[in-house]
Amino acid sequence: MTEQSTGLVAVDAGGTSTRAVVFHPPGQCLGYAVAGSGNPTAVGPETAAASVAESVMGALRRAEVPSTRIRLVVLAMAGAGRTSVAAEIRRRLAGIGLDAPLVFESDLLATYFSGTHRPDGYAVIAGTGAGAIRVEDGRQVAVADALGWLLGDEGSGFWIGQRVVRAALADLDGRGPSTALTPLMLARLGVPAPSDAGDREPIMAVVRALYAGPPVRLADYAGLVFEVDGDGTADRILDDAAAALARTLTAVRSPTVSGPVVLGGGILGRGPKVADRLAAACGAEEVHAVADGAVGVSVLALRHAGTYVDAAVFQQLTTSLTAVR
Amino acid sequence: MTEQSTGLVAVDAGGTSTRAVVFHPPGQCLGYAVAGSGNPTAVGPETAAASVAESVMGALRRAEVPSTRIRLVVLAMAGAGRTSVAAEIRRRLAGIGLDAPLVFESDLLATYFSGTHRPDGYAVIAGTGAGAIRVEDGRQVAVADALGWLLGDEGSGFWIGQRVVRAALADLDGRGPSTALTPLMLARLGVPAPSDAGDREPIMAVVRALYAGPPVRLADYAGLVFEVDGDGTADRILDDAAAALARTLTAVRSPTVSGPVVLGGGILGRGPKVADRLAAACGAEEVHAVADGAVGVSVLALRHAGTYVDAAVFQQLTTSLTAVR
Repeated sequence: MTEQSTGLVAVDAGGTSTRAVVFHPPGQCLGYAVAGSGNPTAVGPETAAASVAESVMGALRRAEVPSTRIRLVVLAMAGAGRTSVAAEIRRRLAGIGLDAPLVFESDLLATYFSGTHRPDGYAVIAGTGAGAIRVEDGRQVAVADALGWLLGDEGSGFWIGQRVVRAALADLDGRGPSTALTPLMLARLGVPAPSDAGDREPIMAVVRALYAGPPVRLADYAGLVFEVDGDGTADRILDDAAAALARTLTAVRSPTVSGPVVLGGGILGRGPKVADRLAAACGAEEVHAVADGAVGVSVLALRHAGTYVDAAVFQQLTTSLTAVR
Repeated sequence: MTEQSTGLVAVDAGGTSTRAVVFHPPGQCLGYAVAGSGNPTAVGPETAAASVAESVMGALRRAEVPSTRIRLVVLAMAGAGRTSVAAEIRRRLAGIGLDAPLVFESDLLATYFSGTHRPDGYAVIAGTGAGAIRVEDGRQVAVADALGWLLGDEGSGFWIGQRVVRAALADLDGRGPSTALTPLMLARLGVPAPSDAGDREPIMAVVRALYAGPPVRLADYAGLVFEVDGDGTADRILDDAAAALARTLTAVRSPTVSGPVVLGGGILGRGPKVADRLAAACGAEEVHAVADGAVGVSVLALRHAGTYVDAAVFQQLTTSLTAVR
């Protein structure tokens, strides 16, 4: 690191965790750190901003770069346009001595550029939320879904988790078929199984526990669907999720753009169960699955800093980030 | 009305409105009034308690009965067991000079006894929420669903309203089929239609408007599904709602109880579209549709006051309530 202010910070703030990268252009990663949820909808603006600051502080420490040497911070976050969130993040970053310009980017675009440097293509993201974009000339030109847990996010972690919990409650309630998801949900919540067919206390205990938290935390139960095999209820949830994500991708498809499809987010990164169903449905010749948006938000930071990201730069960025992770 | 304290107050607090009845045993209704939502989950404990007090005050005024002459208040309300809600309601009733004993009852049981005086049978309710009960010896002995908007209430006003809004957004977003529900939803929200295929502003305006309110208010959009005919999306929502309610009823069925099935709540009271589908599915010989729980909570109040409700008393209560409405 030189004495000039030439370091860049790239932050990928997701619903489950927040990742910060400190690097030197064009693609030399110096430090990386992870903190808690950076999704303001999921955990509130204050906690999200605290996660961003904590991850950045950790990455600067590991890079051994003082915050005064950073010339630009680029942050990919769902709902980043909200003024209250932006102000809270600026305040927190100033609190750790970082007053470089702060640029917000789409978390969906960061996912796209984690899988490819090509300027035209598509991304489908299914983490806590879900959406798809079309990218042309490096810009996000169309988006579908990403409308949040109440109105959209079809095929997302919330969407799957809510179905898991509803299916387990319907099982306990006698409204739905028996499913292996039920004992898994009860165990996760520490609720004893019903003592007999008329015992409604487990249902009420689950209801009390889940209404006590924010709705979006039902995403925590999405993982259970991956823990069972040969369960009809779980298989239907997985089929429905993949079908919903395929519809979302179809909505942004253009006949003139045939580029790669990047699959991202915790649900699509969680083994092949949803990703393979979706890849089969979308029929693209080139599909890349990515773990998160850390590489992509670094690509976006480089672009803001004036660096053209070609295949060689993308490769260096990816390789050197892997080395510091 | 005699000078002794012999009047009864019965209150049916629902998600859309709250109804109060003042009557003299066994079945002479003296006054009736309606106020706003009395569902604490939908509008908060304070507003719900204010609606209860307003409806009671109106019914006492129309009955020309002073509050000091009332010896018992019985209130049917979803989630009435919650201590904070009960305390707020007691405080509000004391504020209008009513300090008679207050008894809470199940809103589901109040619906049941609005349709029949028979001590054994079933009720299915689909208003803002949804659930079913089995009644034996006049007591609610089994319940299914009624687990709230996030975890259950399948086939309810919320459940339908959320599907209506999601279907309209999917239509606007290119993820779902065109539906007549879309212009109805936009008109209801005062949002202009998209200017062209790429215009995402209507979607974002709908999303902003609906996240600004409490989630349960999506129930306000359930009514749109009844306003269209021959729309595939609307028909599927209605079919799915009736099927969900049929599953909920099936979960409380007992081979030893063959009594009547009472259908209640705003969704089942809203013409034949859901009620007929459900009646066809449940196959009971005796089905009664009721508008609300006002008669039933009066039946429950009489029982608490020591009056046995037979067919004659039930008939008098129903007829005299109709006369004061």
